[in-house]
Amino acid sequence: MDELYKERIAYQPTLPHCLQDLDIVSFVDGKEGLSHNEEVKETLPHLFGLPKVHLEKASGSKRALTVGVVLSGGQAAGGHNVITGLFDALQKIDPSSKLIGFLGGPSGIIEGKYQELTAELLSGYRNTGGFDVIGSGRTKIESDEQLASSLAVIKKLSLDGLVVIGGDDSNTNAAILGEYLVSNSCETTVVGVPKTIDGDLKTEDVEISFGFDTATKIYAEMIGNIGKDALSAKKYFHFVKLMGRSASHIALECALKTQPNYTFISEEIAEHKTGLQAVVSDLADCVEKRSKEGKNYGIVLIPEGLIEFIPEMKELISVLNDVLGKEGNVDALPSEVKKTFDLLPEGIQKQLLLDRDPHGNVQVSHIETEKLLIELVKNELKTRIFQGKFSPVQHFFGYEGRSGYPSLFDATYCYALGHVAALLVREKKNGYMASLQGLRGPVDEWKVTGVPIPSLFTFEMRKGKRKAVIKKALVDLNGLPFKKFIEHREQWEKEDAYLCPGPIQFYGPPNISMVIPKTL
Amino acid sequence: MDELYKERIAYQPTLPHCLQDLDIVSFVDGKEGLSHNEEVKETLPHLFGLPKVHLEKASGSKRALTVGVVLSGGQAAGGHNVITGLFDALQKIDPSSKLIGFLGGPSGIIEGKYQELTAELLSGYRNTGGFDVIGSGRTKIESDEQLASSLAVIKKLSLDGLVVIGGDDSNTNAAILGEYLVSNSCETTVVGVPKTIDGDLKTEDVEISFGFDTATKIYAEMIGNIGKDALSAKKYFHFVKLMGRSASHIALECALKTQPNYTFISEEIAEHKTGLQAVVSDLADCVEKRSKEGKNYGIVLIPEGLIEFIPEMKELISVLNDVLGKEGNVDALPSEVKKTFDLLPEGIQKQLLLDRDPHGNVQVSHIETEKLLIELVKNELKTRIFQGKFSPVQHFFGYEGRSGYPSLFDATYCYALGHVAALLVREKKNGYMASLQGLRGPVDEWKVTGVPIPSLFTFEMRKGKRKAVIKKALVDLNGLPFKKFIEHREQWEKEDAYLCPGPIQFYGPPNISMVIPKTL
Repeated sequence: MDELYKERIAYQPTLPHCLQDLDIVSFVDGKEGLSHNEEVKETLPHLFGLPKVHLEKASGSKRALTVGVVLSGGQAAGGHNVITGLFDALQKIDPSSKLIGFLGGPSGIIEGKYQELTAELLSGYRNTGGFDVIGSGRTKIESDEQLASSLAVIKKLSLDGLVVIGGDDSNTNAAILGEYLVSNSCETTVVGVPKTIDGDLKTEDVEISFGFDTATKIYAEMIGNIGKDALSAKKYFHFVKLMGRSASHIALECALKTQPNYTFISEEIAEHKTGLQAVVSDLADCVEKRSKEGKNYGIVLIPEGLIEFIPEMKELISVLNDVLGKEGNVDALPSEVKKTFDLLPEGIQKQLLLDRDPHGNVQVSHIETEKLLIELVKNELKTRIFQGKFSPVQHFFGYEGRSGYPSLFDATYCYALGHVAALLVREKKNGYMASLQGLRGPVDEWKVTGVPIPSLFTFEMRKGKRKAVIKKALVDLNGLPFKKFIEHREQWEKEDAYLCPGPIQFYGPPNISMVIPKTL
Repeated sequence: MDELYKERIAYQPTLPHCLQDLDIVSFVDGKEGLSHNEEVKETLPHLFGLPKVHLEKASGSKRALTVGVVLSGGQAAGGHNVITGLFDALQKIDPSSKLIGFLGGPSGIIEGKYQELTAELLSGYRNTGGFDVIGSGRTKIESDEQLASSLAVIKKLSLDGLVVIGGDDSNTNAAILGEYLVSNSCETTVVGVPKTIDGDLKTEDVEISFGFDTATKIYAEMIGNIGKDALSAKKYFHFVKLMGRSASHIALECALKTQPNYTFISEEIAEHKTGLQAVVSDLADCVEKRSKEGKNYGIVLIPEGLIEFIPEMKELISVLNDVLGKEGNVDALPSEVKKTFDLLPEGIQKQLLLDRDPHGNVQVSHIETEKLLIELVKNELKTRIFQGKFSPVQHFFGYEGRSGYPSLFDATYCYALGHVAALLVREKKNGYMASLQGLRGPVDEWKVTGVPIPSLFTFEMRKGKRKAVIKKALVDLNGLPFKKFIEHREQWEKEDAYLCPGPIQFYGPPNISMVIPKTL
């Protein structure tokens, strides 16, 4: 056992004032009007129209609860603390309560694979990263058979509640399962907890999803170190691709934390319909301008989803998916699309043609955007009278940020979220998501809300069917964080304004150890 | 300014007891016999035969000193602290002492590019990473012209001393410059400080080079996080290549810190003359064995220099360099060598043929060893009845570890090394390297030694000439760290014994914040 591990599992996160005594609080309906999309009524008749609920002083019920918990989707730091927070809250409500963990994600519910989570077992996972306590998975409980199997397992276990820790899709499915249970006379309360490092599960009430803080701190540590290195060696242009799916929240947060020379925000490129040539040309301008100042080095941040936001690339991928079969004839591409294809380096062309998923679709996430941009900038510089040196180095930061020890913010936030989930179950708030507000303020003053998941639903066409989804929150181009970014980016492009935020600290003064995300 | 930065620059490292009052200590010749290679006598007649020196209680001289300092080669965390330690020690010796920083590495000496380092300027660099305070460079002061220009600049500045912060080559050249100066009646004392993250500058007296601790902690943080992620997702086999040039010290240290499933130690492969096919086959065995246990995931650590230690690859590269011109005819390769070549994936073949340095040599450091191994393991598994899944992910950790905030160990070690360098200059110990012993014990008890650099010299043929070098320390296959590793590696291969050492801590208990490297 290493030393930090021993210290972390012994750490006790503080709780917001309102969660310190669960016996004297209870949920009451919020007064604010909350409009649900009318279309929800059809799919979720029982859960349609539910109000927001707030935690207020009132005597809470005390009864032993049996609760199931499941981790769904990609890892995010703090998942273990949601579980230990849930466990501790259940124990406080009644010491004979039980917590059952479903193994390997939602498939554990369908297949009835679970394990009781005891104090002893959980003692080794407190404040640690990863989802290894019960594992996670990406199976969705969607089909009639899956719903029926889940119902059977839930009934067999006599669960009072089921807590689903997941992202937008998992929370959507939590509500759908909640509706299915209630319409099948099962009284189990299904509750969601907002998880994702990508930061795209964000609503008026859900200020942030957990895991985002830790991931961006880890990425920013690395980017900051690379910035210092670039500034010292003065030799390399570092191209850093960052995990985060479609949205550019992670890239924006890291940019604000580290002040690199160039950061792509996909949403801005989509908004301005910036073409591939313009994207490359602007980046090459940055390289050239810096080189003229004697700076043959720099850092560029690239959000993972960038490619899908560049109009011609989107078009090209869609045409490749629809028109061409696997290894189809490139000459059959419409001439405009063929032009885009011809711009691309050979390696990427090959990948687009050959690397398809089982449905024959281009695997966008496999495209090495950082390499693509490097090659295109190289080609662009060849067409110019570029006298400088351009030595690019590529990086991709992703997996290293999902399962680190949670920052004190994530550890505290998640521990509290676990408590909120326990209370939502106790008070039978079926179809609600656990939420805390006022996260920019002191932990003591954080407020608790239950958000009815159906109120977040919009409907989209998916495979020819209307489907309920929680809309992924993209970077708001009118929001303060983005404005702050565009205010400074010209300066950051020219100057070496790199910041080096350093490694996450678990000790020391709160302005070091309890820093909140800049985009929050 | 970010918060951690403000805290770090205000931090005051503790000093070993013997360095707390510089007025009452002085160097005395060591009693132990120290044999110099006889060949040294020819190249360094004045510095030949110098004894080790130890710091003992005795009144030290107090006089104002003008000292130059230069950073040479790649970044290593703590470089700034050597400089601030040197500055503070010079101020303690006499407040009118001056420190002059040569800009951009040794070329700053040759070209007379320098800047006075004042208390105010240095105040922003204390305990920070990077070499950005004066920059670094890889120019070597070797030719007669370079030596003469350096002498002129050193004379013009009336330097009492010149402190060279660098690796094996830089320290070698420091001694050669020291000899040149004394033989040209210049009284400037040249002193070396052992720097390199690679850990290959290690002798009986130099227990560790600075920067190794911070770099391996940063890499181990990332590897540990990836291990947690692999264990949670259970989907990916992570192949992590680690910086560190020829030697596998970094890989070994990270293996001991994180307990991955498979770690290549280049020195072992060379010792056993393990062939490429055997290397790949053994790694494929690991993948297959784990898969049979239902574990289609894992972590593999690969030292950067691995390829040069695999006999056939070494042979292949040497033949490609010597026999074939650029884009030469592959069929002209000797049949044994051609067989190795044919084993390689197409991308690597292309790289070997086309990606040459200005001298036409294969650029070994450009070979993506991690990708090579992935492709070869894939091919190997195809020849077996492999029923599992093999989804590899590749990583390279390098630049992010060289310029982070120094760990408390590196910050303290470097600050003390700066003091030792100041004392060596004060006492005119020309051609010595600053050294501290007892680093495994409390800082208070660290001992100070001056090591005559020429005593570390061996001679090698380089470009047809005998050349003095400090032999790079490779991993000692009889040493305790390697023995510890082989004792556990079978267990680590099968089980998921991953450790997650977490981010470097600057606060908290010493067993968390002042951890020393396991290989020390």
